[in-house]
Amino acid sequence: MTQDARPSGAEIRQRVVGGGNGQQMAQVDPILAPFFETAIEHVWGGLWNRPGLDLKYRSLVVVSVLAAIGQTEELKPHVRGALNLGWTVDELREALLQIGGYAGFPAAHEALDVLSEIGKTVAA
Amino acid sequence: MTQDARPSGAEIRQRVVGGGNGQQMAQVDPILAPFFETAIEHVWGGLWNRPGLDLKYRSLVVVSVLAAIGQTEELKPHVRGALNLGWTVDELREALLQIGGYAGFPAAHEALDVLSEIGKTVAA
Amino acid sequence: MTQDARPSGAEIRQRVVGGGNGQQMAQVDPILAPFFETAIEHVWGGLWNRPGLDLKYRSLVVVSVLAAIGQTEELKPHVRGALNLGWTVDELREALLQIGGYAGFPAAHEALDVLSEIGKTVAA
Amino acid sequence: MTQDARPSGAEIRQRVVGGGNGQQMAQVDPILAPFFETAIEHVWGGLWNRPGLDLKYRSLVVVSVLAAIGQTEELKPHVRGALNLGWTVDELREALLQIGGYAGFPAAHEALDVLSEIGKTVAA
Amino acid sequence: MTQDARPSGAEIRQRVVGGGNGQQMAQVDPILAPFFETAIEHVWGGLWNRPGLDLKYRSLVVVSVLAAIGQTEELKPHVRGALNLGWTVDELREALLQIGGYAGFPAAHEALDVLSEIGKTVAA
Amino acid sequence: MTQDARPSGAEIRQRVVGGGNGQQMAQVDPILAPFFETAIEHVWGGLWNRPGLDLKYRSLVVVSVLAAIGQTEELKPHVRGALNLGWTVDELREALLQIGGYAGFPAAHEALDVLSEIGKTVAA
Repeated sequence: MTQDARPSGAEIRQRVVGGGNGQQMAQVDPILAPFFETAIEHVWGGLWNRPGLDLKYRSLVVVSVLAAIGQTEELKPHVRGALNLGWTVDELREALLQIGGYAGFPAAHEALDVLSEIGKTVAA
Repeated sequence: MTQDARPSGAEIRQRVVGGGNGQQMAQVDPILAPFFETAIEHVWGGLWNRPGLDLKYRSLVVVSVLAAIGQTEELKPHVRGALNLGWTVDELREALLQIGGYAGFPAAHEALDVLSEIGKTVAA
Repeated sequence: MTQDARPSGAEIRQRVVGGGNGQQMAQVDPILAPFFETAIEHVWGGLWNRPGLDLKYRSLVVVSVLAAIGQTEELKPHVRGALNLGWTVDELREALLQIGGYAGFPAAHEALDVLSEIGKTVAA
Repeated sequence: MTQDARPSGAEIRQRVVGGGNGQQMAQVDPILAPFFETAIEHVWGGLWNRPGLDLKYRSLVVVSVLAAIGQTEELKPHVRGALNLGWTVDELREALLQIGGYAGFPAAHEALDVLSEIGKTVAA
Repeated sequence: MTQDARPSGAEIRQRVVGGGNGQQMAQVDPILAPFFETAIEHVWGGLWNRPGLDLKYRSLVVVSVLAAIGQTEELKPHVRGALNLGWTVDELREALLQIGGYAGFPAAHEALDVLSEIGKTVAA
Repeated sequence: MTQDARPSGAEIRQRVVGGGNGQQMAQVDPILAPFFETAIEHVWGGLWNRPGLDLKYRSLVVVSVLAAIGQTEELKPHVRGALNLGWTVDELREALLQIGGYAGFPAAHEALDVLSEIGKTVAA
């Protein structure tokens, strides 16, 4: 695999969750800075930018995982990312409802609350 | 929503994971029988058969959730289901690798072991 | 099992957690509506209304599970439900303390904070 | 609370899961010995032997927790303990099925497999 | 092991997280009181006060566990405890970042937010 | 931070868990190969090789995390790694017992079984 041909983690992150590329936050807080740098280089730049699966599907995977393990805060930017990548609010509602059978209905409920909150800003 | 228009849980389950529809197992073991009946009626018939999201994407959601929460045994039929619904082994490999960043690399490793085992029988 | 003889999910839910039957909320928010409908039909109407175990014991099971997996928000109505079904605040305190040994003392602590908050309103 | 009046952890453990009191195992393996001693003194002797909730209900709490968090091995002696304390196989089947809605159906399935295995030896 | 030679749970707790020894809180709230008493006697007095591993390393273990399982509230006093026992903010930042690979980056992020908040009060 | 000055992920992995550097396994199985490559580059080469915390302490963090989240298979090489880096069997026994209070005694038990098994081969 020619690593060079892959977009950088910062580019991919920008395309998915938009906004800044984390460097601003990284400069502000010396404790969180290494986290953002590491996440950009090794999660965005080591996983998301791999060939073989569309960003849109990677996003659905990540949203499903975060909902299942109850990472509500982290779910928020990734729900926005999923909408950016072409999923509709209704499709994401179905995806999150689906996880109720597998990670429990409370996990689905918590994730749907996040979607509901974000969905209102999208519709407005 | 016209519930009547939706396929039954048993039909959907047959389409996704194939094989029996669970009734055979249900008849054999009086402790597991109510579980299979309930799962078919309320998970397959209450979630999977809903309109609004393709089975193929529901399958990716379920595979992601099971990998994230370490439900390795339950993951096996659902990886087969994902292959039945059109995902390739390579796409699933990328999906499971992707979860490493969010639920941890050990969870990804465990799920990829399942995929590797099933992938061999598919290729053979 | 004669499904018809079982009370509906909405009836059981009313008996356990009281208040509305979820339809009010369901009408307000198009993202949460399918969740409440599904939970009423498939969790309340697929699990809680089964014969073979008293509602009071089903409630203890659910409270224990929610405390163990850290679903604090969902725990609140279910602690109220457990009190409605005849458990005392002291019995629930012991139940939640007991889980400390199995799911860890922080999980017990978090659940006891919920009980403490609800217990004050009960005593008042 | 007069701690002295409470039965010892070893006595309670004997009453619930029966068999040895762990000291035999403890003598064999120098790595597991401190674990069994600690569990007997601080879990059995610090939680199970408290007044305020019957052993039978404490047992249901523990079975529910272990099923919810997927501690299958630890679930086995506690399912036997629940049967010792008066729960029937059918009641436990309902309790474990109930958790499907809250911790996910795969967790319920895994726990029901344990119950099924133990239930056969009970019936025989 | 001569249990008598071990410091009491209350002494150890005072040395690690400082502040009160929990008895004040215990007297205020009849629901939380048994929890604090039990935690002091059976966690602080049954685990932390054991010989064989320095308090400083036990603290790192507990911080790692709480970060991994997402017990953010409980993490706060234990991060302060880790600083009391001699770990630096930078060492803890590295420890929490390290868990990203094993329990997922969102768990690391959540824990680093706690450290960042506490770290500011330490630096000031 | 000068990334160039840091040892490679493969070097660090060799120092901690010894044995091969994963490339052999990677060549054998096309599904697991990208996982091992990614883990070496982005976990070993993105986290373990960072300055600011000794490998020995990073190892204790990882062992604690894996024990807490029940990743028993992944725990095995990391327990061996912890022994390679200078922790004794007795210190690790205390570390794993300590987690009982925070992630539950069953998680501690499961991890101590792993340590017991590996400890025997070390002592022999």
